[in-house]
Amino acid sequence: MAVGLEIPDTIHPVDGVRLSCVSANIKKASTPDLVLFELVNGTVTAGVFTKNAFCAAPVTIAKEHLLASFPRALLINSGNANAGTGTQGMENCERSCSVIASQLGIKKSQVLPFSTGVISQQLPMDNLLLGIKAIGEGLSADNWLQAATGIMTTDTLPKIVSRKFDIGNETITITGICKGSGMIKPDMATMLAFVATDAKLGKVQLQSCLEEAVQTSFNSITVDGDTSTNDACILVATGQAQSDEISAASPEMKVFKKALTEVCIELAQSIVRDGEGATKFITLNVTGGRDVEESREVAYTVAHSPLVKTAFFASDPNIGRLLAAVGRSRIDSLKLETVYIALDEVDLVLAGEPAASYSEERGQMVMDRKEISVNISLGRGDAEATIWTTDLSNEYVRINAEYRT
Amino acid sequence: MAVGLEIPDTIHPVDGVRLSCVSANIKKASTPDLVLFELVNGTVTAGVFTKNAFCAAPVTIAKEHLLASFPRALLINSGNANAGTGTQGMENCERSCSVIASQLGIKKSQVLPFSTGVISQQLPMDNLLLGIKAIGEGLSADNWLQAATGIMTTDTLPKIVSRKFDIGNETITITGICKGSGMIKPDMATMLAFVATDAKLGKVQLQSCLEEAVQTSFNSITVDGDTSTNDACILVATGQAQSDEISAASPEMKVFKKALTEVCIELAQSIVRDGEGATKFITLNVTGGRDVEESREVAYTVAHSPLVKTAFFASDPNIGRLLAAVGRSRIDSLKLETVYIALDEVDLVLAGEPAASYSEERGQMVMDRKEISVNISLGRGDAEATIWTTDLSNEYVRINAEYRT
Repeated sequence: MAVGLEIPDTIHPVDGVRLSCVSANIKKASTPDLVLFELVNGTVTAGVFTKNAFCAAPVTIAKEHLLASFPRALLINSGNANAGTGTQGMENCERSCSVIASQLGIKKSQVLPFSTGVISQQLPMDNLLLGIKAIGEGLSADNWLQAATGIMTTDTLPKIVSRKFDIGNETITITGICKGSGMIKPDMATMLAFVATDAKLGKVQLQSCLEEAVQTSFNSITVDGDTSTNDACILVATGQAQSDEISAASPEMKVFKKALTEVCIELAQSIVRDGEGATKFITLNVTGGRDVEESREVAYTVAHSPLVKTAFFASDPNIGRLLAAVGRSRIDSLKLETVYIALDEVDLVLAGEPAASYSEERGQMVMDRKEISVNISLGRGDAEATIWTTDLSNEYVRINAEYRT
Repeated sequence: MAVGLEIPDTIHPVDGVRLSCVSANIKKASTPDLVLFELVNGTVTAGVFTKNAFCAAPVTIAKEHLLASFPRALLINSGNANAGTGTQGMENCERSCSVIASQLGIKKSQVLPFSTGVISQQLPMDNLLLGIKAIGEGLSADNWLQAATGIMTTDTLPKIVSRKFDIGNETITITGICKGSGMIKPDMATMLAFVATDAKLGKVQLQSCLEEAVQTSFNSITVDGDTSTNDACILVATGQAQSDEISAASPEMKVFKKALTEVCIELAQSIVRDGEGATKFITLNVTGGRDVEESREVAYTVAHSPLVKTAFFASDPNIGRLLAAVGRSRIDSLKLETVYIALDEVDLVLAGEPAASYSEERGQMVMDRKEISVNISLGRGDAEATIWTTDLSNEYVRINAEYRT
């Protein structure tokens, strides 16, 4: 049950990007699980990848290919992560790239491979190769929703954000899809997000825009604190828009970065809204920190507390659990006396004392909401951070206890 | 449903310690929730306390009193943590100490107060004071089981370890009780453990013994990663045994430390065995680390992973989740190529490759056990660490969603 998540009415195609989606019978029979992005010649690509030391075969290869070439194709399968699969996994991934490359008449190094699903099982190569053979035929600029559906695993809804922005006198499009629901605590990027724009940017500029946008979007969410072995976020710029190339220090760059960050935040939030078993969408605002790092540490400590998460699930204003989680954050010499904590507009703690205005009824009123902000001020600096997360429900346990059955 | 946890057949009283337990109607009507330890004159006490910045009123006061005096009484209530209760909470705690002190004819500073239960609610002082009035009458050296029951909150069983050890030509006794089931990731000490011995030690020596024992026992367990506001572990040495004072560098000190650590480990494990909703008892052995800290970091990352914990609950040999958790540990430049992972005797990963001997059947065989070891070698040093934890079940969510109802 996703919280406040909808498929947009209008999805803008991105000039220079065509997509296709088929079932390769990897996930379940006849379920879409193989997606191809075909990128026009001249497309510039940026990417960020998981920092998990045990990253998957496709992550290793996609990083190599991105360094070596200007990618012309993204090939994504769901249902199997091709992680923890050793040399066999690397060979299978290389082979998939070769086969799709020769079909499309491009170089192997121009294919970026991605996989998501069960870890530690080898890819079913016969099925995959049959899927690859079929996938070139269905390419269309209008297949974004199909692609978003094809990359889903435990997601209950496809996740798409599509916008048009004015930059100077021109209009550009940014459309992105992502997947992810559990094993979500991205570190540099989250589980598979693909964002495309028709804007024109150089490779260095594009990479820097992506890294900046990812920090306050995909790197600011958590469902369960587990960082995937397969996380990746890819941004492609086809340069097909009428606008000139956006240069590093231009006013247009500011506008582009803001637009990109907006799309990435909405995509990242869509992962949280569809978090496994989620019944609440929680925004953690930490202000008054000495630096951003400690503000994020406090926010993540609260966001990962199973006791805070189960209290949200129960709609129980158990404010003691919030206090305990803030108090155990790994930051130096936090003083209770300067701390302020509120749930939405309801004060809980003022200068370390229980707020006189607080009552169980007012706490309950906020807790009954589907979307709740926890506002924490540490009162010792000017830095701040925002993290989005979910509650922890029986459904999360059920989904993950039954994942492979 | 506790995993492999039993009340011992024989509980050895500790000469110099008398205990009493009554119901003060704090937890539930007519449920034992108030416990008194009376300590003989000459008793030496050591203590370690939570590092949670929002520590409870009794923690603050117990620390002060321990510095100021040789305690003669420990007063413990369950059902209410007296944490997050501001100045009112401090006043209530001071008052409880005063009242029991005048009843026992000792100084207020000779009373160490402890509370455990719901956070952010004021103590029901009328009930508590009635309980304190009654509690002095039932003092007996044989009331260890009653005391262990009186300090329980969500615990399903009382937790007691009682042993006799030979030191030199004499025999000493160590008997301890503890409580705790959720909000368990002790930092310096866990939620309320009280250990008594009749051995004779100086205050400095006793404190150092306790700190050492706590590191590999209470500070090596986790249920849900949440550090309580009220954690405390107290060790009293009454000196009533026939043996001489155990001095710092003596061979007897080695024996005593080993005995104490053994008792503390078994008490700490009893908390994990009775972890909220626990169906499995998991031992995480990490070897081959560069230092103990990074070995502990890897062990805790695996122990806190909700995905690993739900896989254990489901008895699902989802080894990919173990890999992903090891891989996301916050340690520098971990190389997959040197890593070894096994479940009990079943190899999962050898030098970064899936173990050839592994099969789903062998994985399932281990996963079906109630007690499972995860053995991880990082292959980059000689340091090691052991952490004990539980699985994550529907029952954990149910218990914590309904805690205050």
